[in-house]
Amino acid sequence: MTSTNHTTAGGVILFSGGVGGAKLALGLDRILPAGALTIIANIGDDFRHMGLAISPDIDTLVYTLAGLVDTDKGWGRAEESWNFMAELRRLGGETWFQLGDRDLATHVERSRRLEAGETLATITRETCQRLGIRSRIVPASDKRVQTRVVTEAGVLAFQDYFVRRRAEPVVSELRFIGASEATPPVTAVAALRDPALQALVIAPSNPWLSIDPILSVPALRTALEQANVPRIAVSPLVDGEAIKGPTAKLMAELGLPVNQASIARHYRGLIDGLILDHADSAEVEAVEALGIRATTTATVMRSLEDRQALAAFALEFAASLRRS
Amino acid sequence: MTSTNHTTAGGVILFSGGVGGAKLALGLDRILPAGALTIIANIGDDFRHMGLAISPDIDTLVYTLAGLVDTDKGWGRAEESWNFMAELRRLGGETWFQLGDRDLATHVERSRRLEAGETLATITRETCQRLGIRSRIVPASDKRVQTRVVTEAGVLAFQDYFVRRRAEPVVSELRFIGASEATPPVTAVAALRDPALQALVIAPSNPWLSIDPILSVPALRTALEQANVPRIAVSPLVDGEAIKGPTAKLMAELGLPVNQASIARHYRGLIDGLILDHADSAEVEAVEALGIRATTTATVMRSLEDRQALAAFALEFAASLRRS
Repeated sequence: MTSTNHTTAGGVILFSGGVGGAKLALGLDRILPAGALTIIANIGDDFRHMGLAISPDIDTLVYTLAGLVDTDKGWGRAEESWNFMAELRRLGGETWFQLGDRDLATHVERSRRLEAGETLATITRETCQRLGIRSRIVPASDKRVQTRVVTEAGVLAFQDYFVRRRAEPVVSELRFIGASEATPPVTAVAALRDPALQALVIAPSNPWLSIDPILSVPALRTALEQANVPRIAVSPLVDGEAIKGPTAKLMAELGLPVNQASIARHYRGLIDGLILDHADSAEVEAVEALGIRATTTATVMRSLEDRQALAAFALEFAASLRRS
Repeated sequence: MTSTNHTTAGGVILFSGGVGGAKLALGLDRILPAGALTIIANIGDDFRHMGLAISPDIDTLVYTLAGLVDTDKGWGRAEESWNFMAELRRLGGETWFQLGDRDLATHVERSRRLEAGETLATITRETCQRLGIRSRIVPASDKRVQTRVVTEAGVLAFQDYFVRRRAEPVVSELRFIGASEATPPVTAVAALRDPALQALVIAPSNPWLSIDPILSVPALRTALEQANVPRIAVSPLVDGEAIKGPTAKLMAELGLPVNQASIARHYRGLIDGLILDHADSAEVEAVEALGIRATTTATVMRSLEDRQALAAFALEFAASLRRS
């Protein structure tokens, strides 16, 4: 693979969920020129909690790119305090969803602005500007798209499934309420139509829980299907396990082999290439048999250098697909 | 004045605003048997801020009686942290109204419960129980009564006048929106009708800003007018000045002499006796000329002992009026 100069690269769009996706987002943000990266964020996890509008994946992306994230957890705020939660517990309030004192400002301010009639895209854009973020973070839609998890325990709202029940119930199906009527914000559409666009990248987020809610927005799926630039994904699986979260467990519950071919099959028609971890080099052939180019690198991102290296690798891989 | 045994006293009702009233409330709470004290709290200052339902006077009373108040300021929480406000400022939110991290739990939980259809009285009662408060704190009404301050700068919402503009605009009139349709919660009515009721006490709160919104609720004014137990007030003025807050400034703006006779005249028909500070012993005669019994004691409450002493003095004064 040849080396490219990322400081002169055109636009890149990343489809991303929260923690895992934010790592690659940070890598791309750091190696691309300011303004070149547009991140289309999952909003399927968004929910109303105690009257507050909470957008977990957008916030993880914002905090990560602003350098404010709790790097140990991968979400929430660094140097967070928890006095609000302690008092809420004392008052007998609901405490299953952790809200730090600093984090709370994001939710209260967003709720106020939504109530005042501003869109989630506008609020997110201005928050990014205020926090000095160089990239654009755009919600998949201004209208709500709500992930519903069909489980043995009933049809659950996402946070009920994921946080309160720790992703324990066996899943049979995912639904994305409101998706068919949802449209991407104009900033997402503009980025997709930008003649300087170089690549579409799907982050190593959970394909079913984090990426599918984005792709359930018809115009976004169509944009991927019809793109005339290279489209790649970074697989969230490494050696049959997810780096983080319930991807492998969920795949098994959905009756899918927990391997790279299942990831490739899931994205078939939407991507030209799939990046696997070196640990899965034996699966390159199976992926390529599906008509998707495959390559391997180190996909586990521990340091900022890891994030930047994977980002650079992804851009080079995409560029190589353009030339091929 | 004879000494009475307060541990066997019957019910006492205190009409109270925030900081100043809460001091007397704490004194009464400490010397009366558990459950004997009912505090009917001003709700005219209540407002919606960033989507949160804030009840400043109720909260000051709750925090004070629960031993959680910031005793330096007289309001807000002890051992408070301010990370929420710091982040709100970073996000460009409204920061003129201070909300501590611990305090915020009260507002978020109250907002959630109001939204779920619970009444302010129920929420306040259960909060008191949960925090181990022995007395009852009851809002003047479950329906909103909103103080509007008519000033040279226009008709202002209370917190806009009081906090944001620091009570600087010259006031010509007070209005209490919604008062004529407001009714006291059943717990207030029950306390007022309790055959064991011994005294009605008006706290040394601002008569125009803090007590009048309570008395603007027709059934509460009538209850005071028609009470068959002694009714007393503790004057908020000491030597022509308010201990705290804009009482003297406001009286001057309303064209009233800043003296005890003005306080007595304001409460005429509603009280049988008025407690003045020793500093105002020269004004006893002027008050009594209005048909209201007057007595003096130390009304400035610095310590818990001061609070209890004034509370005991008030109960003894009321008892003496019953016997007279």
